[in-house]
Amino acid sequence: MTPEEFRKAGHELIDWIADYREQVPDLPVRAQVKPNEVRDALPKTAPDSPESFETVLSDLQNIVVPGVTQVQHPMHYGWFPSNASLSSVLGDIASSGLGTLGISWESCPALTEVEQVVCDWLRQLTGLSEAWHGSIHDTASTACVTAMILAREKASGLSKNHGGLPASSAPLIIYSTRQAHSSIAKAVQLAGFGNDNLRYIDEDPYTRAMKPEALAAAITEDRSAGNIPAGIVCSVGATGTTAMDPIDAIADIANAEDIWLHVDAAMAGSAMLLPECRHLWHGVEKADSVAWNPHKWMGTILDTALMYVRDVDHLERVMSTNPSYLRSTADGEVVQYRDWGIPLGRRFRALKLWFHLRLDGPDAIRERMRRDLENAQWFKQQIESMEGWEVLAPVDLQTVCIRHTPMDDDGQLLSGDALDKYTLSWVDIINSSGEAFMSPSVLDGRWMVRVSIGVEGTERSHLEKLIELLKHNTQ
Amino acid sequence: MTPEEFRKAGHELIDWIADYREQVPDLPVRAQVKPNEVRDALPKTAPDSPESFETVLSDLQNIVVPGVTQVQHPMHYGWFPSNASLSSVLGDIASSGLGTLGISWESCPALTEVEQVVCDWLRQLTGLSEAWHGSIHDTASTACVTAMILAREKASGLSKNHGGLPASSAPLIIYSTRQAHSSIAKAVQLAGFGNDNLRYIDEDPYTRAMKPEALAAAITEDRSAGNIPAGIVCSVGATGTTAMDPIDAIADIANAEDIWLHVDAAMAGSAMLLPECRHLWHGVEKADSVAWNPHKWMGTILDTALMYVRDVDHLERVMSTNPSYLRSTADGEVVQYRDWGIPLGRRFRALKLWFHLRLDGPDAIRERMRRDLENAQWFKQQIESMEGWEVLAPVDLQTVCIRHTPMDDDGQLLSGDALDKYTLSWVDIINSSGEAFMSPSVLDGRWMVRVSIGVEGTERSHLEKLIELLKHNTQ
Repeated sequence: MTPEEFRKAGHELIDWIADYREQVPDLPVRAQVKPNEVRDALPKTAPDSPESFETVLSDLQNIVVPGVTQVQHPMHYGWFPSNASLSSVLGDIASSGLGTLGISWESCPALTEVEQVVCDWLRQLTGLSEAWHGSIHDTASTACVTAMILAREKASGLSKNHGGLPASSAPLIIYSTRQAHSSIAKAVQLAGFGNDNLRYIDEDPYTRAMKPEALAAAITEDRSAGNIPAGIVCSVGATGTTAMDPIDAIADIANAEDIWLHVDAAMAGSAMLLPECRHLWHGVEKADSVAWNPHKWMGTILDTALMYVRDVDHLERVMSTNPSYLRSTADGEVVQYRDWGIPLGRRFRALKLWFHLRLDGPDAIRERMRRDLENAQWFKQQIESMEGWEVLAPVDLQTVCIRHTPMDDDGQLLSGDALDKYTLSWVDIINSSGEAFMSPSVLDGRWMVRVSIGVEGTERSHLEKLIELLKHNTQ
Repeated sequence: MTPEEFRKAGHELIDWIADYREQVPDLPVRAQVKPNEVRDALPKTAPDSPESFETVLSDLQNIVVPGVTQVQHPMHYGWFPSNASLSSVLGDIASSGLGTLGISWESCPALTEVEQVVCDWLRQLTGLSEAWHGSIHDTASTACVTAMILAREKASGLSKNHGGLPASSAPLIIYSTRQAHSSIAKAVQLAGFGNDNLRYIDEDPYTRAMKPEALAAAITEDRSAGNIPAGIVCSVGATGTTAMDPIDAIADIANAEDIWLHVDAAMAGSAMLLPECRHLWHGVEKADSVAWNPHKWMGTILDTALMYVRDVDHLERVMSTNPSYLRSTADGEVVQYRDWGIPLGRRFRALKLWFHLRLDGPDAIRERMRRDLENAQWFKQQIESMEGWEVLAPVDLQTVCIRHTPMDDDGQLLSGDALDKYTLSWVDIINSSGEAFMSPSVLDGRWMVRVSIGVEGTERSHLEKLIELLKHNTQ
């Protein structure tokens, strides 16, 4: 395709995107397609000859869009917000247009250096000190795998350079809680620790925060048993209820015991743009690594996860390679981001953050998130004032965990499996309708519903509409 | 940013990209900036208030572009081709515009199902049987880490679910060659095997292909020593000289010994669209995993790496998680790609491949690659006919490894460190000029120069120009 053909198709595509984004509020929130419906609508083999752009665009509209769950819809309250601000989309488009290759500083100096700049901008915007050095990963899951490998290599004296984990004299132990995101257990398994060596530390029964004294006791017990405590993963805004582990107290233990502390702030990191929220990760300066996702609430389009570490020397010792075909005269003077993570090649993701922060400005982003925090408090109060409804966890951020408990036919409060069935039933009715979407989730062995507020377009009026839906679809 | 503001800025950006792509052949190939020049040109802190799109676009042109090494330039012969076809750029833009979230089938059914479709199209286009099931990773490096974990968990009886690698009764061994990409050693280290447990098997001195009999002997020796052979990594188009390991013979050994065989065809995978090249990975059907990068020669914009496996059950046993907040009624009927790799969240990358294959068509892609293969043979012949020049390795694909050996002042052929210094000097003169770019690389302990042909815009005339540059800048 020539630049002139691209120009023509590109203009059509921009108009299509703008029209699409305008239509999003009128589309069903959850995709209404059945399993394999999209797949069955597409040819089983690639075309032999080129097709027209109009044909492809038409399939995008008629086959793909019905298969998209509209996470940019103002009535989307599922999982966590996954905002794709149009200013960051422009940065993503610029990145695509440039067609750069990020495998070394030399292969695209600007890719490396704009990434350094925007990671440092966000370091400052979230109140982290100059001790932290950041880079962009695809997801917080990948950042967590990286952190677990860093912890493993610290505790094992760089075993990767020698006999690896099979040569370990004792099991290496990771500590977290059951509230931690599923990617934590996965990272522990992928990094080779083994699931038996992941300790779930007791939580406070209401806040779901890790109990530091229980952590200290577990570490002592492991040391007595001859095990090697290697890493701690704290959650700031855990997925279920946005639980906040007490970083400060945990970091004191980690530092005293010389154990790697990773802070998974995938969701709550965005909140740290607000000075009034920073108490939620008080003590973070004493951690070893921190990851969070601008591609969630802050709204830089996925995939944009940030990982900060303090000890860059350790990071590079663990992650670096230096093959002859990637060497250049600039080595030693510049950062080689390939030595900061798993993949060698990287896209020019920094442009997404650069465009987003420059075109929207931090103040507008903060204002939007403050709106969401207020909406969450308002919504919490509404739920608490409604007969039969309860809010099940603290609302420190923008996610409200709710449950409705009706009377059964005998005038008794519904409970047990019957309550689970009822909960899953009403949320499924709403989700299936396409009018709103929420995520059911299990808390203390019982289903509840997470209402995660924070889509760019979600205003108070949308929450009022959600309240009506809740009332209308429950007994 | 509203859709209308996006529409206006988007049109400007499309024009900017089309203009930029037209200008690429007139830009220096290697970025001419000094270390930190881009960074120093940017503000140290994020802006307080929003900036205009014109300001950002102007900075993109004046600060970023000079910091870009132009891998789309027809005189770029460095590393491997990293084509970013404009048809795939359109698919990438569509993906950005949609702003989807890929964490489960339910979060975007179309994202999952279009990925299934295009992975299957490319399976057919590369001649793989229906036994293979593919997904998109960011890079072949990440695919290799995944493959090493799959090998580890097969050999250790799913140790991840129990005591992990520290509980291993013996070292787990991986076999490869010194020609393998640096990401292989890195993957072995990241997966916890330890570098001591990576065996570099002897190669043929000219083709650099792994010797199957040496592999068999190494496995026997390891078994005698009580070690556990766990995985073999074969290269099809290794980075230095595009060496081709003999898959068929190696696969027979792997199958007989029940060892996981991963085929790293990062570069040569594209060539498998050409039936006449498929003999280069003869035997691939007997491997366990294969990875290759459409974002290289084939030209779907980075990041687009494909990984195929045969045993999906094993893949999912190793990589899956199933937290309550990601469950849906469709589970069991659909693929959950989060259980096929490391990250939970994924972009709608399949659109890049979908647009590329539909708008350009496989035939045009094949025609372009055949042009490159012919150009490589022509270039090889030219070099061989030039006084003092030699071609150092077979030219099975599109990369030609060359060296010039002049006489010294005493009429002797230059050798040793003096030859290295000379080689690095002339290639640096050309690379620094911005007129062409090649990658110096070490082969058998001596520097040589890789001329990797295959940029979309590279025609015979560009290679003629390169020949002139080589003659002009050597003694």
